[in-house]
Amino acid sequence: MKIITISREFGSGGRELGKRLADLLGYDYYDKEIITTIASNKGMDEDYVARLIEQQGWPNIPMTFHQSLVGVPMDTTHTELLLEQKRVIEQIAKAGNDCVIVGRNADVLLHEYEPFNIFVCADMEAKIQRCMNRVSENEDLNTKEMERKINKIDKSRSQTRDLVTDSSWGDRSDYHLTVNTSNWNINELALAVADFANSWFERTNR
Amino acid sequence: MKIITISREFGSGGRELGKRLADLLGYDYYDKEIITTIASNKGMDEDYVARLIEQQGWPNIPMTFHQSLVGVPMDTTHTELLLEQKRVIEQIAKAGNDCVIVGRNADVLLHEYEPFNIFVCADMEAKIQRCMNRVSENEDLNTKEMERKINKIDKSRSQTRDLVTDSSWGDRSDYHLTVNTSNWNINELALAVADFANSWFERTNR
Repeated sequence: MKIITISREFGSGGRELGKRLADLLGYDYYDKEIITTIASNKGMDEDYVARLIEQQGWPNIPMTFHQSLVGVPMDTTHTELLLEQKRVIEQIAKAGNDCVIVGRNADVLLHEYEPFNIFVCADMEAKIQRCMNRVSENEDLNTKEMERKINKIDKSRSQTRDLVTDSSWGDRSDYHLTVNTSNWNINELALAVADFANSWFERTNR
Repeated sequence: MKIITISREFGSGGRELGKRLADLLGYDYYDKEIITTIASNKGMDEDYVARLIEQQGWPNIPMTFHQSLVGVPMDTTHTELLLEQKRVIEQIAKAGNDCVIVGRNADVLLHEYEPFNIFVCADMEAKIQRCMNRVSENEDLNTKEMERKINKIDKSRSQTRDLVTDSSWGDRSDYHLTVNTSNWNINELALAVADFANSWFERTNR
Protein backbone atom coordinates (compact mmCIF):
# COMPACT_ATOMS: atom_id res chain seq x y z
CA MET A 1 0.00 0.00 0.00
CA LYS A 2 1.19 3.49 -0.85
CA ILE A 3 0.29 6.43 1.35
CA ILE A 4 1.27 10.02 0.62
CA THR A 5 0.85 12.54 3.42
CA ILE A 6 0.74 16.28 2.84
CA SER A 7 1.58 18.74 5.59
CA ARG A 8 1.38 22.34 4.55
CA GLU A 9 1.58 26.00 5.40
CA PHE A 10 -1.80 27.72 5.17
CA GLY A 11 -2.19 29.28 1.73
CA SER A 12 0.63 27.29 0.14
CA GLY A 13 -1.67 25.30 -2.13
CA GLY A 14 -0.89 22.07 -0.29
CA ARG A 15 -4.49 20.84 -0.32
CA GLU A 16 -4.79 21.52 -4.06
CA LEU A 17 -1.50 19.71 -4.64
CA GLY A 18 -2.74 16.74 -2.61
CA LYS A 19 -6.01 16.56 -4.53
CA ARG A 20 -4.22 16.74 -7.86
CA LEU A 21 -1.70 14.08 -6.81
CA ALA A 22 -4.55 11.74 -5.84
CA ASP A 23 -6.21 12.34 -9.22
CA LEU A 24 -2.98 11.74 -11.13
CA LEU A 25 -2.07 8.58 -9.24
CA GLY A 26 -5.59 7.19 -8.88
CA TYR A 27 -5.32 7.20 -5.08
CA ASP A 28 -8.11 7.83 -2.59
CA TYR A 29 -8.08 11.33 -1.16
CA TYR A 30 -8.72 12.28 2.45
CA ASP A 31 -8.98 15.74 3.86
CA LYS A 32 -12.29 17.12 5.09
CA GLU A 33 -13.67 13.58 4.72
CA ILE A 34 -11.91 12.84 8.01
CA ILE A 35 -13.79 15.64 9.80
CA THR A 36 -17.08 14.38 8.31
CA THR A 37 -16.41 10.91 9.71
CA ILE A 38 -15.44 12.22 13.15
CA ALA A 39 -18.56 14.40 13.28
CA SER A 40 -20.71 11.46 12.24
CA ASN A 41 -19.11 9.08 14.76
CA LYS A 42 -19.51 11.61 17.56
CA GLY A 43 -22.91 12.90 16.54
CA MET A 44 -21.55 16.43 16.41
CA ASP A 45 -21.82 19.33 13.99
CA GLU A 46 -19.19 19.13 11.26
CA ASP A 47 -18.23 22.80 11.26
CA TYR A 48 -17.95 22.72 15.01
CA VAL A 49 -15.66 19.68 14.94
CA ALA A 50 -13.51 21.34 12.27
CA ARG A 51 -13.13 24.55 14.23
CA LEU A 52 -12.52 22.87 17.55
CA ILE A 53 -10.02 20.34 16.22
CA GLU A 54 -8.12 23.02 14.37
CA GLN A 55 -8.35 25.41 17.33
CA GLN A 56 -9.34 28.28 15.11
CA GLY A 57 -12.07 29.71 17.31
CA TRP A 58 -15.76 29.45 16.48
CA PRO A 59 -17.17 32.92 15.81
CA ASN A 60 -20.20 31.67 13.88
CA ILE A 61 -21.37 29.02 16.29
CA PRO A 62 -24.13 30.15 18.67
CA MET A 63 -23.35 30.03 22.36
CA THR A 64 -26.15 27.54 22.97
CA PHE A 65 -24.25 25.02 20.90
CA HIS A 66 -21.20 25.44 23.14
CA GLN A 67 -23.39 24.92 26.13
CA SER A 68 -24.53 21.54 24.90
CA LEU A 69 -21.03 20.42 25.91
CA VAL A 70 -21.53 21.56 29.49
CA GLY A 71 -19.73 19.34 31.95
CA VAL A 72 -16.95 18.53 29.51
CA PRO A 73 -14.02 20.92 29.83
CA MET A 74 -13.10 22.41 26.44
CA ASP A 75 -9.61 20.91 26.38
CA THR A 76 -10.96 17.43 27.08
CA THR A 77 -13.25 17.69 24.08
CA HIS A 78 -10.31 18.83 21.98
CA THR A 79 -8.30 15.84 23.17
CA GLU A 80 -11.23 13.49 22.53
CA LEU A 81 -11.60 14.79 19.01
CA LEU A 82 -7.88 14.39 18.34
CA LEU A 83 -8.08 10.81 19.59
CA GLU A 84 -11.08 10.13 17.38
CA GLN A 85 -9.20 11.68 14.47
CA LYS A 86 -6.31 9.34 15.17
CA ARG A 87 -8.66 6.34 15.11
CA VAL A 88 -10.25 7.47 11.84
CA ILE A 89 -6.86 7.92 10.18
CA GLU A 90 -5.72 4.50 11.37
CA GLN A 91 -8.89 2.97 9.94
CA ILE A 92 -8.17 4.59 6.58
CA ALA A 93 -4.72 2.99 6.56
CA LYS A 94 -6.08 -0.39 7.68
CA ALA A 95 -8.50 -0.35 4.74
CA GLY A 96 -5.37 -0.81 2.64
CA ASN A 97 -6.06 1.45 -0.33
CA ASP A 98 -3.42 3.73 -1.80
CA CYS A 99 -4.27 7.22 -0.62
CA VAL A 100 -3.28 10.84 -0.14
CA ILE A 101 -4.02 12.29 3.30
CA VAL A 102 -3.82 16.05 3.81
CA GLY A 103 -2.85 17.41 7.22
CA ARG A 104 -3.73 16.01 10.65
CA ASN A 105 -0.18 14.76 11.34
CA ALA A 106 -0.96 11.60 9.38
CA ASP A 107 2.76 11.27 8.60
CA VAL A 108 3.49 10.57 12.25
CA LEU A 109 0.28 8.69 13.07
CA LEU A 110 0.87 6.29 10.17
CA HIS A 111 4.63 5.99 10.59
CA GLU A 112 4.53 2.19 10.58
CA TYR A 113 2.97 2.21 7.09
CA GLU A 114 6.01 4.10 5.77
CA PRO A 115 4.12 6.85 3.99
CA PHE A 116 5.85 9.25 1.61
CA ASN A 117 5.73 12.52 3.52
CA ILE A 118 5.60 15.89 1.81
CA PHE A 119 5.68 19.33 3.38
CA VAL A 120 4.33 22.14 1.21
CA CYS A 121 5.44 25.73 1.75
CA ALA A 122 5.45 28.99 -0.20
CA ASP A 123 6.77 32.52 0.07
CA MET A 124 4.54 34.71 2.26
CA GLU A 125 3.72 36.97 -0.69
CA ALA A 126 2.50 33.98 -2.72
CA LYS A 127 0.47 32.65 0.22
CA ILE A 128 -1.23 36.00 0.76
CA GLN A 129 -2.01 36.23 -2.95
CA ARG A 130 -3.47 32.72 -3.03
CA CYS A 131 -5.63 33.45 0.01
CA MET A 132 -6.82 36.81 -1.32
CA ASN A 133 -7.88 35.11 -4.57
CA ARG A 134 -10.08 32.56 -2.87
CA VAL A 135 -11.33 34.71 -0.03
CA SER A 136 -15.09 34.58 0.53
CA GLU A 137 -17.10 37.75 0.12
CA ASN A 138 -17.84 38.15 3.80
CA GLU A 139 -14.17 37.99 4.76
CA ASP A 140 -12.79 41.38 3.98
CA LEU A 141 -9.12 41.22 5.01
CA ASN A 142 -6.30 43.40 3.77
CA THR A 143 -2.88 41.87 3.12
CA LYS A 144 -1.55 42.64 6.62
CA GLU A 145 -4.58 41.03 8.21
CA MET A 146 -4.29 38.06 5.88
CA GLU A 147 -0.62 37.61 6.85
CA ARG A 148 -1.64 37.62 10.51
CA LYS A 149 -4.34 35.05 9.79
CA ILE A 150 -1.86 32.80 7.95
CA ASN A 151 0.64 33.02 10.79
CA LYS A 152 -2.07 32.34 13.37
CA ILE A 153 -3.34 29.23 11.62
CA ASP A 154 0.19 27.90 11.09
CA LYS A 155 0.99 28.54 14.75
CA SER A 156 -2.04 26.51 15.70
CA ARG A 157 -0.93 23.67 13.39
CA SER A 158 2.50 23.80 14.95
CA GLN A 159 1.03 23.64 18.46
CA THR A 160 -1.19 20.68 17.58
CA ARG A 161 1.85 18.85 16.20
CA ASP A 162 3.74 19.56 19.42
CA LEU A 163 0.80 18.12 21.33
CA VAL A 164 0.42 14.87 19.41
CA THR A 165 3.94 14.11 18.13
CA ASP A 166 7.61 14.29 19.14
CA SER A 167 8.53 16.26 16.07
CA SER A 168 8.36 19.91 15.10
CA TRP A 169 5.96 21.10 12.43
CA GLY A 170 7.81 21.83 9.19
CA ASP A 171 11.13 20.44 10.41
CA ARG A 172 12.80 19.46 7.13
CA SER A 173 14.24 16.18 8.35
CA ASP A 174 10.75 14.86 9.17
CA TYR A 175 9.61 14.89 5.54
CA HIS A 176 10.92 13.10 2.48
CA LEU A 177 10.33 16.17 0.37
CA THR A 178 9.66 19.82 1.10
CA VAL A 179 8.40 21.80 -1.88
CA ASN A 180 7.97 25.52 -2.32
CA THR A 181 4.95 26.14 -4.57
CA SER A 182 5.75 29.80 -5.32
CA ASN A 183 5.85 30.39 -9.08
CA TRP A 184 4.68 26.86 -9.86
CA ASN A 185 1.45 25.98 -11.55
CA ILE A 186 0.04 23.39 -9.12
CA ASN A 187 -0.93 20.98 -11.92
CA GLU A 188 2.61 21.00 -13.29
CA LEU A 189 4.09 20.71 -9.81
CA ALA A 190 1.81 17.75 -9.09
CA LEU A 191 3.21 15.91 -12.13
CA ALA A 192 6.78 16.45 -10.90
CA VAL A 193 5.93 15.43 -7.32
CA ALA A 194 4.01 12.35 -8.50
CA ASP A 195 7.09 11.18 -10.44
CA PHE A 196 9.25 11.81 -7.39
CA ALA A 197 6.90 9.87 -5.11
CA ASN A 198 6.75 7.00 -7.59
CA SER A 199 10.56 6.84 -7.58
CA TRP A 200 10.45 6.62 -3.80
CA PHE A 201 7.86 3.84 -3.81
CA GLU A 202 9.91 1.92 -6.40
CA ARG A 203 12.95 2.43 -4.21
CA THR A 204 11.08 0.91 -1.27
CA ASN A 205 9.69 -1.92 -3.41
CA ARG A 206 6.05 -0.94 -3.41
CA MET B 1 21.33 29.05 -18.79
CA LYS B 2 20.37 26.58 -16.08
CA ILE B 3 22.02 26.71 -12.67
CA ILE B 4 21.30 24.26 -9.87
CA THR B 5 22.56 25.17 -6.42
CA ILE B 6 22.96 22.64 -3.63
CA SER B 7 22.98 23.69 0.01
CA ARG B 8 23.37 20.84 2.44
CA GLU B 9 23.75 19.58 5.95
CA PHE B 10 27.16 18.08 6.60
CA GLY B 11 27.02 14.32 6.02
CA SER B 12 23.74 14.40 4.11
CA GLY B 13 25.30 13.33 0.82
CA GLY B 14 24.56 16.70 -0.77
CA ARG B 15 27.91 16.93 -2.52
CA GLU B 16 27.53 13.43 -3.97
CA LEU B 17 24.01 14.30 -5.10
CA GLY B 18 25.30 17.47 -6.78
CA LYS B 19 28.07 15.60 -8.57
CA ARG B 20 25.66 12.92 -9.76
CA LEU B 21 23.15 15.54 -10.94
CA ALA B 22 25.85 17.30 -12.96
CA ASP B 23 26.84 13.97 -14.55
CA LEU B 24 23.24 13.07 -15.37
CA LEU B 25 22.39 16.46 -16.83
CA GLY B 26 25.72 17.13 -18.52
CA TYR B 27 26.25 20.31 -16.50
CA ASP B 28 29.53 21.73 -15.24
CA TYR B 29 30.19 21.01 -11.58
CA TYR B 30 31.66 23.42 -9.05
CA ASP B 31 32.57 22.69 -5.49
CA LYS B 32 36.21 22.60 -4.39
CA GLU B 33 37.09 24.06 -7.80
CA ILE B 34 35.95 27.38 -6.36
CA ILE B 35 38.44 27.15 -3.50
CA THR B 36 41.21 26.23 -5.95
CA THR B 37 40.47 29.35 -8.00
CA ILE B 38 40.36 31.62 -4.94
CA ALA B 39 43.66 30.20 -3.67
CA SER B 40 45.23 30.68 -7.08
CA ASN B 41 43.92 34.25 -7.45
CA LYS B 42 45.16 35.18 -3.98
CA GLY B 43 48.43 33.24 -4.12
CA MET B 44 47.44 31.38 -0.96
CA ASP B 45 47.53 27.79 0.16
CA GLU B 46 44.39 25.90 -0.90
CA ASP B 47 43.85 24.03 2.38
CA TYR B 48 44.33 27.23 4.28
CA VAL B 49 41.75 29.04 2.14
CA ALA B 50 39.30 26.18 2.60
CA ARG B 51 39.68 26.11 6.36
CA LEU B 52 39.57 29.86 6.78
CA ILE B 53 36.61 30.41 4.48
CA GLU B 54 34.66 27.63 6.14
CA GLN B 55 35.73 28.79 9.61
CA GLN B 56 36.57 25.28 10.66
CA GLY B 57 39.76 26.06 12.52
CA TRP B 58 43.17 25.13 11.17
CA PRO B 59 44.79 22.58 13.45
CA ASN B 60 47.23 21.30 10.82
CA ILE B 61 48.58 24.63 9.63
CA PRO B 62 51.84 25.70 11.32
CA MET B 63 51.78 28.94 13.29
CA THR B 64 54.40 30.49 11.03
CA PHE B 65 51.91 30.33 8.21
CA HIS B 66 49.40 32.31 10.26
CA GLN B 67 52.05 34.87 10.99
CA SER B 68 52.62 35.54 7.33
CA LEU B 69 49.29 37.32 7.54
CA VAL B 70 50.57 39.70 10.23
CA GLY B 71 49.05 43.15 9.94
CA VAL B 72 45.81 41.81 8.52
CA PRO B 73 43.25 41.07 11.23
CA MET B 74 41.87 37.55 10.90
CA ASP B 75 38.30 38.68 10.27
CA THR B 76 39.39 40.97 7.46
CA THR B 77 41.05 38.07 5.71
CA HIS B 78 37.91 36.01 6.15
CA THR B 79 35.87 38.83 4.65
CA GLU B 80 38.32 39.23 1.78
CA LEU B 81 38.12 35.55 1.00
CA LEU B 82 34.32 35.62 1.06
CA LEU B 83 34.36 38.58 -1.32
CA GLU B 84 36.77 36.77 -3.61
CA GLN B 85 34.50 33.71 -3.45
CA LYS B 86 31.57 35.88 -4.46
CA ARG B 87 33.52 37.20 -7.47
CA VAL B 88 34.54 33.69 -8.53
CA ILE B 89 30.93 32.43 -8.32
CA GLU B 90 29.70 35.42 -10.33
CA GLN B 91 32.33 34.69 -12.98
CA ILE B 92 31.12 31.09 -13.23
CA ALA B 93 27.59 32.34 -13.88
CA LYS B 94 28.76 34.96 -16.38
CA ALA B 95 30.53 32.22 -18.35
CA GLY B 96 27.00 31.08 -19.19
CA ASN B 97 27.33 27.30 -18.99
CA ASP B 98 24.70 25.14 -17.31
CA CYS B 99 26.14 24.14 -13.96
CA VAL B 100 25.67 22.68 -10.50
CA ILE B 101 27.25 24.67 -7.67
CA VAL B 102 27.58 23.07 -4.25
CA GLY B 103 27.48 25.27 -1.14
CA ARG B 104 28.86 28.79 -0.71
CA ASN B 105 25.42 30.43 -0.69
CA ALA B 106 25.44 30.43 -4.49
CA ASP B 107 21.61 30.37 -4.41
CA VAL B 108 21.59 33.88 -2.96
CA LEU B 109 24.67 35.22 -4.75
CA LEU B 110 23.24 34.19 -8.13
CA HIS B 111 19.64 35.14 -7.38
CA GLU B 112 19.33 37.17 -10.58
CA TYR B 113 20.14 34.09 -12.68
CA GLU B 114 17.11 32.30 -11.17
CA PRO B 115 18.88 29.10 -10.17
CA PHE B 116 16.97 26.01 -9.08
CA ASN B 117 17.83 25.81 -5.40
CA ILE B 118 17.98 22.54 -3.50
CA PHE B 119 18.59 21.98 0.19
CA VAL B 120 19.79 18.50 1.13
CA CYS B 121 19.22 17.11 4.62
CA ALA B 122 19.16 13.73 6.33
CA ASP B 123 18.32 12.18 9.66
CA MET B 124 21.18 12.55 12.17
CA GLU B 125 21.64 8.79 12.35
CA ALA B 126 22.06 8.58 8.57
CA LYS B 127 24.50 11.51 8.58
CA ILE B 128 26.63 9.96 11.29
CA GLN B 129 26.67 6.65 9.41
CA ARG B 130 27.67 8.34 6.16
CA CYS B 131 30.47 10.24 7.89
CA MET B 132 31.74 7.15 9.75
CA ASN B 133 31.91 5.25 6.45
CA ARG B 134 34.12 7.81 4.76
CA VAL B 135 36.17 8.88 7.75
CA SER B 136 39.91 9.01 7.18
CA GLU B 137 42.12 6.72 9.19
CA ASN B 138 43.63 9.48 11.29
CA GLU B 139 40.23 10.74 12.38
CA ASP B 140 39.11 8.42 15.10
CA LEU B 141 35.74 9.77 16.25
CA ASN B 142 32.99 7.87 17.99
CA THR B 143 29.36 8.54 17.07
CA LYS B 144 28.86 11.17 19.79
CA GLU B 145 31.95 13.06 18.66
CA MET B 146 30.85 12.76 15.05
CA GLU B 147 27.44 14.21 15.91
CA ARG B 148 29.18 17.14 17.61
CA LYS B 149 31.38 17.65 14.54
CA ILE B 150 28.35 17.60 12.22
CA ASN B 151 26.51 20.15 14.38
CA LYS B 152 29.59 22.35 14.61
CA ILE B 153 30.14 22.45 10.85
CA ASP B 154 26.45 23.13 10.19
CA LYS B 155 26.47 25.91 12.78
CA SER B 156 29.41 27.47 10.98
CA ARG B 157 27.56 27.22 7.65
CA SER B 158 24.54 28.83 9.23
CA GLN B 159 26.67 31.67 10.62
CA THR B 160 28.33 32.30 7.27
CA ARG B 161 24.90 32.47 5.64
CA ASP B 162 23.77 34.98 8.27
CA LEU B 163 26.87 37.02 7.46
CA VAL B 164 26.50 37.16 3.69
CA THR B 165 22.73 36.91 3.11
CA ASP B 166 19.38 38.07 4.51
CA SER B 167 18.07 34.54 4.76
CA SER B 168 18.44 31.72 7.25
CA TRP B 169 20.37 28.59 6.39
CA GLY B 170 18.00 25.70 5.69
CA ASP B 171 14.85 27.84 5.85
CA ARG B 172 12.44 25.85 3.68
CA SER B 173 10.93 28.80 1.87
CA ASP B 174 14.36 29.80 0.50
CA TYR B 175 14.72 26.64 -1.59
CA HIS B 176 12.62 25.21 -4.39
CA LEU B 177 13.10 21.72 -3.05
CA THR B 178 14.32 20.26 0.23
CA VAL B 179 15.15 16.57 0.07
CA ASN B 180 15.90 14.13 2.85
CA THR B 181 18.45 11.59 1.59
CA SER B 182 17.92 9.06 4.41
CA ASN B 183 17.15 5.63 2.98
CA TRP B 184 17.72 6.78 -0.58
CA ASN B 185 20.42 5.48 -2.85
CA ILE B 186 21.99 8.75 -4.03
CA ASN B 187 22.10 7.64 -7.68
CA GLU B 188 18.38 6.89 -7.65
CA LEU B 189 17.62 10.09 -5.79
CA ALA B 190 19.66 12.04 -8.35
CA LEU B 191 17.49 10.68 -11.16
CA ALA B 192 14.32 11.80 -9.36
CA VAL B 193 15.76 15.23 -8.53
CA ALA B 194 17.04 15.72 -12.09
CA ASP B 195 13.53 15.10 -13.43
CA PHE B 196 12.10 17.53 -10.90
CA ALA B 197 14.65 20.22 -11.80
CA ASN B 198 13.98 19.70 -15.50
CA SER B 199 10.24 20.23 -14.87
CA TRP B 200 11.10 23.48 -13.13
CA PHE B 201 13.31 24.69 -15.96
CA GLU B 202 10.57 23.82 -18.48
CA ARG B 203 8.12 25.71 -16.30
CA THR B 204 10.37 28.76 -16.43
CA ASN B 205 10.97 28.39 -20.16
CA ARG B 206 14.61 27.45 -20.09
